[in-house]
Amino acid sequence: MNKTISELGEIKLIERLLSKRDDKLSDINPQILASYHDDAAIELNTSTYTVISTDMLIEHSHFPKEMTHYQMGEKIVTVNVSDILSMNATPTSIVISMALNPSMTLQEFDDMIDGILHKCEEYGITLIGGDLNQNDEIILSATAMGKINKNIKLQSNTNNNDLIAITGELGSPAAGLDLLNSNEKIDIPNNEEQKIIKTILEPNLPIKESKYFQKYPELISSMTDITDGLAAELGHLREKNPELGFEIEFDKIPFNSYLPHVAKQFNKSLNYYLLHFGEEFELLLTINEKEYLKHEKELDDLIYIIGKVNTSKNLTLIKGNSIENIEARGYEHLK
Amino acid sequence: MNKTISELGEIKLIERLLSKRDDKLSDINPQILASYHDDAAIELNTSTYTVISTDMLIEHSHFPKEMTHYQMGEKIVTVNVSDILSMNATPTSIVISMALNPSMTLQEFDDMIDGILHKCEEYGITLIGGDLNQNDEIILSATAMGKINKNIKLQSNTNNNDLIAITGELGSPAAGLDLLNSNEKIDIPNNEEQKIIKTILEPNLPIKESKYFQKYPELISSMTDITDGLAAELGHLREKNPELGFEIEFDKIPFNSYLPHVAKQFNKSLNYYLLHFGEEFELLLTINEKEYLKHEKELDDLIYIIGKVNTSKNLTLIKGNSIENIEARGYEHLK
Repeated sequence: MNKTISELGEIKLIERLLSKRDDKLSDINPQILASYHDDAAIELNTSTYTVISTDMLIEHSHFPKEMTHYQMGEKIVTVNVSDILSMNATPTSIVISMALNPSMTLQEFDDMIDGILHKCEEYGITLIGGDLNQNDEIILSATAMGKINKNIKLQSNTNNNDLIAITGELGSPAAGLDLLNSNEKIDIPNNEEQKIIKTILEPNLPIKESKYFQKYPELISSMTDITDGLAAELGHLREKNPELGFEIEFDKIPFNSYLPHVAKQFNKSLNYYLLHFGEEFELLLTINEKEYLKHEKELDDLIYIIGKVNTSKNLTLIKGNSIENIEARGYEHLK
Repeated sequence: MNKTISELGEIKLIERLLSKRDDKLSDINPQILASYHDDAAIELNTSTYTVISTDMLIEHSHFPKEMTHYQMGEKIVTVNVSDILSMNATPTSIVISMALNPSMTLQEFDDMIDGILHKCEEYGITLIGGDLNQNDEIILSATAMGKINKNIKLQSNTNNNDLIAITGELGSPAAGLDLLNSNEKIDIPNNEEQKIIKTILEPNLPIKESKYFQKYPELISSMTDITDGLAAELGHLREKNPELGFEIEFDKIPFNSYLPHVAKQFNKSLNYYLLHFGEEFELLLTINEKEYLKHEKELDDLIYIIGKVNTSKNLTLIKGNSIENIEARGYEHLK
């Protein structure tokens, strides 16, 4: 298996990929399966709406050098499905275009495909199409599709007095990247260091939480993922609801208890880790308080309430007795 | 307008793009338009099937240095919509991810977006989503969607005795690329040289022909575009119909009359230009002969009959009195 992919070439590589994929497909309509091997894939429309989102990952920007090919494959599926969950839709399928270096080994290619197919299985979706190209750096570009009948969660549907909630801890991807890029040993327990790093190398989606929201869509007024960082996402919400303000209580944001220590070691502020870095695949949602109270017990296992919507038109952070403004700043490409 | 895109950055560039796009959208449902500015786009399902295809273009492989940014924008839409037409579906929408160099000028960015939006308008589709990234080389990756109720044209539906037809001249993209890459002046009329080069810089889709096929789907047994070259596409058809053979009459293949001269100048064979290069966006279709006779008059303006399906299990080319085998070879990445 020290063969490189150039020994096989595009045609045999696609055959290899499709055969791995087809092994996972049973009970599929033969005409639909045939379309997955044709010019374009067809999908039977069984819902009122199709939900579509696209995201591209480029080696030098999105894949730390420690990331395995399996993890790269997982990540391209995760980042794309994340946007489908953000609309409260059920993900159904994905197409993935890849540009690969001819010197990539066949083992690395297989690992990448296995990572893709593993996440497709976890999220209950099918890889239905793609394109294969040649490039020095690895580029993965995908489009995920989902279905929904009604109750689409647009960011513009946020209401005054809604609770602001997130589905999990923030800040670890930022800290994880610093830990990966550092040569010095940081004095935190090894298992905690690995847990923090894992959030950047193997991001997960809040699938259990999403399924609950899909079951009770009346709970949620608006939803988004936090890939640009909490501050930037709150900024998007304010842009789409210009009459509203968003107040976050710092003490209610959940994070790994070693983050303050890691931040200090790297001369970063904890605020930067928690608010301004992003690469987080937790969901940020606004909830009607009355609806929340009806589901309080179940929701307490699924979400963290971190603030409340008001009419201040500002993004504010309560820290003890002080209130500071949050700058709606996150990572920006091409700047 | 000598500003570079890095002076604006991702957020303002996306705003600029969306504002150009929104100017072209009228009469759209406000909730659906809002979703085009949200995590994922939603589409109302008005057909039985959604048809989906994806294609990536990378500067060094797919954009000759003479290609303008406007033409690059046009091309990413054309190559993706081509696969939707190949299924005899009506294209509806597209998402496009772009990776751009920070030093790109704002004028070049605007030109690229204008090229994208121009082709969207020509094909009657909407740009509904995308992603913006940073890279040295330009990378454009898109996914096109279409709709169809029935009569999907799978390559595996080809029948014995069907006529083989194409929608237009072959070979010019191959010759056009040679002309672009050459420093010497080839002695053919300037307007013919420009016509040949235009097929590589500004490929067009057979829209009029597609509309006719969508109106009379019973005409066609199978269909595909010719992006891998006629020989490779016939090879795909044979793979999917292993009991069939495909016989092409060389004299019936339409091509620009200056191609033999150009091929000779570049020491290429006319066969290579016509059969093995690709980058062609004409459609290759198989037609039931009885159905053809019912529509003969209209079809004679739309297609060229170039051969016939048989049961030889071979790909053969009739040239005068001789018959030669066609090797199912086209351009292959990563080899």
